[in-house]
Amino acid sequence: MKGMMMHRPLKIADILEFAAEVHGEAEVISARHEGDVHRAGLRAIRDRVCRLAHALRARGVGEGERIATLAFNGHRHLECYYAISGIGAVCHTINPRLPADQMRYIIDHAGDTHIFVDAPLVPLLEPLLPTLARPLTVVVMTDRAHMPDTPLDGVICYEELLDGEPTRFDWPDYPEETAAGLCYTSGTTGAPKGALYSHRSTVLHALFVSSALPTVLQPGRKVLPVVPLFHVNAWGLPYVAPLAGASLVFPGAKLDGKSLFDLMDAEGVYSAWGVPTVWLGLLAEIAARGRLPEGFGHVLVGGSAAPRSMIAAFEEMGVTVFHAWGMTEMSPIGTVGALPPSVRAGPPEARLQKQSIQGRRVFGVEFKINGENGERLPHDGVSQGELHVRGNAVISGYHANPEATEAAIDAEGWFGTGDIATIDPDGYLSITDRAKDLIKSGGEWISSLDVENLAISHPKVRNCACIAVADDKWGERPLLVVVPEGDDAPDSDEILDLLATKFARWQLPDEVVTVDALPLTATGKVSKLTLRKQFAAQRAAEGGRTP
Amino acid sequence: MKGMMMHRPLKIADILEFAAEVHGEAEVISARHEGDVHRAGLRAIRDRVCRLAHALRARGVGEGERIATLAFNGHRHLECYYAISGIGAVCHTINPRLPADQMRYIIDHAGDTHIFVDAPLVPLLEPLLPTLARPLTVVVMTDRAHMPDTPLDGVICYEELLDGEPTRFDWPDYPEETAAGLCYTSGTTGAPKGALYSHRSTVLHALFVSSALPTVLQPGRKVLPVVPLFHVNAWGLPYVAPLAGASLVFPGAKLDGKSLFDLMDAEGVYSAWGVPTVWLGLLAEIAARGRLPEGFGHVLVGGSAAPRSMIAAFEEMGVTVFHAWGMTEMSPIGTVGALPPSVRAGPPEARLQKQSIQGRRVFGVEFKINGENGERLPHDGVSQGELHVRGNAVISGYHANPEATEAAIDAEGWFGTGDIATIDPDGYLSITDRAKDLIKSGGEWISSLDVENLAISHPKVRNCACIAVADDKWGERPLLVVVPEGDDAPDSDEILDLLATKFARWQLPDEVVTVDALPLTATGKVSKLTLRKQFAAQRAAEGGRTP
Repeated sequence: MKGMMMHRPLKIADILEFAAEVHGEAEVISARHEGDVHRAGLRAIRDRVCRLAHALRARGVGEGERIATLAFNGHRHLECYYAISGIGAVCHTINPRLPADQMRYIIDHAGDTHIFVDAPLVPLLEPLLPTLARPLTVVVMTDRAHMPDTPLDGVICYEELLDGEPTRFDWPDYPEETAAGLCYTSGTTGAPKGALYSHRSTVLHALFVSSALPTVLQPGRKVLPVVPLFHVNAWGLPYVAPLAGASLVFPGAKLDGKSLFDLMDAEGVYSAWGVPTVWLGLLAEIAARGRLPEGFGHVLVGGSAAPRSMIAAFEEMGVTVFHAWGMTEMSPIGTVGALPPSVRAGPPEARLQKQSIQGRRVFGVEFKINGENGERLPHDGVSQGELHVRGNAVISGYHANPEATEAAIDAEGWFGTGDIATIDPDGYLSITDRAKDLIKSGGEWISSLDVENLAISHPKVRNCACIAVADDKWGERPLLVVVPEGDDAPDSDEILDLLATKFARWQLPDEVVTVDALPLTATGKVSKLTLRKQFAAQRAAEGGRTP
Repeated sequence: MKGMMMHRPLKIADILEFAAEVHGEAEVISARHEGDVHRAGLRAIRDRVCRLAHALRARGVGEGERIATLAFNGHRHLECYYAISGIGAVCHTINPRLPADQMRYIIDHAGDTHIFVDAPLVPLLEPLLPTLARPLTVVVMTDRAHMPDTPLDGVICYEELLDGEPTRFDWPDYPEETAAGLCYTSGTTGAPKGALYSHRSTVLHALFVSSALPTVLQPGRKVLPVVPLFHVNAWGLPYVAPLAGASLVFPGAKLDGKSLFDLMDAEGVYSAWGVPTVWLGLLAEIAARGRLPEGFGHVLVGGSAAPRSMIAAFEEMGVTVFHAWGMTEMSPIGTVGALPPSVRAGPPEARLQKQSIQGRRVFGVEFKINGENGERLPHDGVSQGELHVRGNAVISGYHANPEATEAAIDAEGWFGTGDIATIDPDGYLSITDRAKDLIKSGGEWISSLDVENLAISHPKVRNCACIAVADDKWGERPLLVVVPEGDDAPDSDEILDLLATKFARWQLPDEVVTVDALPLTATGKVSKLTLRKQFAAQRAAEGGRTP
């Protein structure tokens, strides 16, 4: 028996129209490459989005057409999100830090017809455009006065594009499964793979995240996405913040500690979302000034595991930390580390232990852990296996990539994350490692993450990475690569002594190597692939060593 | 182009399974007719729901089968909600205050096969059952020791039904449009009409309400639905509270001021939801004790318009009031009066003005106002017409009632609410009147609600109702019926002088009549239909008077 309820398509444009009406006091504040700070209420943003939608229609952009963006966090990028998806086209966000060949690959693979680009990033396009499979119209997201000199043909000025267009748009209806956004995974191995979000998945993801973060996302609150709009939709903030009536503060390209501190302090940002790396810079700036930015009370850390010491540092200053976990393939939020009242009010050590793991699922995401033979493992906090996920905001496959789809979706229709995890009876997810980063020594697993989490708590260690190197006798052995904090580099024994307090002798790295910096991927994560290649060559020359 | 995202049916059971895992600390606390206060964590509730689901299956209850409830607010009633809908059947909540003929009508119309009843309500069924069109199995929601003596055959004891059943249930998948709940409108005119909710509408409604009430619905908070579970799903609280991790405190049948105060005080209830009538009792109790219940900080008032004086009384004590508006046909929440920061922080008079109207729409609900010829009127705060609504939690028609469906849904597919309203540019909805309660005098409209709202602010007025009586010259004229506060009844002139400060002379009631009590509908609203009938007869005998 069917219910007798209306079926209205869940549509992204409805979030903006709702927010402009009900949360008209909320603002979008953008530190721009032009050097100013742009402020607009959600109604002014809605008006600009409508003008852009008319302009896109006037240019003949049709439903399903892919429109790329290559930009940092700012109001114009947000406007593209809503206008492109609103008319039924697909907003394809591109990471400007991608190598040129990957950028070319994904533009060709997506079949983009237009690209909206920040003025400072136009030089990236100049050598690229002539090599693309299809013509690509360039729109530079600035006004006439700030248009760059470029040899590119037919470049359009964003503000001129909007000029004279009407400020209301009659958003069309389409099925809620219609594609709305496209984001390629950074692809440390193989070609990048595209996650193709729908209106339904995007709206539901925003609702799921809103229901999980009531204390963070409220009218009157300001939220700063350090996480880029080109990186999995800035974890959904462009949708959930307006939905909840929170203001958005966009930092542009300047993500150093001083720039972030100044912007947060001036605007009274309550919550900031980003990867662990940026918080190191902000913490250093806070230490240097001896105070917090005005109004700062919450950090959401995701992208990679947050070191316990970082969490403790924020919490000691009265800044609540939620550890989050997700994936491009999950829109992306899977878990948040919002703690239940008993843990929040409990002893700090127990609290920190819960905060240093990945948190608990948001409504709408389901987990299962599979053993090596595909059997389901219990959620007992001990059994570890590959985490699989299911839900309305999880991909059912990769865009135009049946091979990758086949490899990612299991026989029951769940997405295999490639993460090794445990889940305890209270639902706490603990990511032990990326499957490919686990180290298998003499048939036993060593978690590179566990080693790193302890090593980074050493005062002389700024950052570190534990990787596998091939070993004739044991198969693989761990090697620890360390970036020292300041000039006084730690010696191997200092680090190994610390690790020996928690790890068995056979789990200890064979070697501790000091380097000036760790190689990063395009999304700012440590590239263990690069490290493994580098040290594999070196160790191969030396021959395997036994521990 | 379609997105490549999983499509999982939105299911009510997923709310409970999610909440049991992630919000296991949240409780369901029930003041029971057995005389005790029952406490259970959400995991224990989930276990009991699973046992009930098994028991229903064992009795052969199939998908789409209608299972009735006749009960006050308590954990067993909540368990019915989840178990019945979880197995794909339909939970039909019945208002115990309905006249017997209406109860018979809706049980027959719904085609219920079982009825779950609170022990004290069994006597209502005894004369009814033999008159029903089909056999109805009675389950009394108590344990063996508290089973009532009854002449009814084959009565089942709820706790015995659950005994021995497994505490886990593998919830089936079904399309998200599957019917889950059925609630008949109280029907002051004509036969009751059934709203048939789906899993999709119910889950989305919970998500919409959660996103609208972040400050109210959080882990660690306790929420008390005074609004009955038999009345439009207690405004969605059985779903949104577990989703958000808030605890539920159920008051059973005792809704007088003293009982509510004691329960709220003992449990530390933060937010209580109900109709204006119950708050009069609670306010009197608070005044008598000279203090608030422990932890009390928020009231959500809906069902009928809250008098401004009541809102002011709560706010002056530091209890935040959200005025809400909705309908059975809307699942039910359409608006909430959560105020934006500027209004909340602004002058009390301006704040009270905003609070005394109905608030602003929640995400997922759309409004239009139609003029007398069906034309759309602007949202300018002045133009008034019939409010129409649209959204995923709005009915597309009435269950097995094509005539009522035809009358309720307009040519564009919107539901006509029968309310006369204005909407201002900031989205504030103001219900001027029920269309059928408006008074048309000499071709001009008089709002009965506006008259009542001012009259009730008179210190000698406890409650009042303004109704139309037929008039030979003017068509209709207003009459004001007043229940005095205490023994000192106001005379007509006192009230008319007050009204004359805001109303034109022709808008003033012709007569002010004092009565001991106003007639109420089954849902506790003032029955203007009854009043109109009563005074129409009286005035007809007197002959029309000119003002």
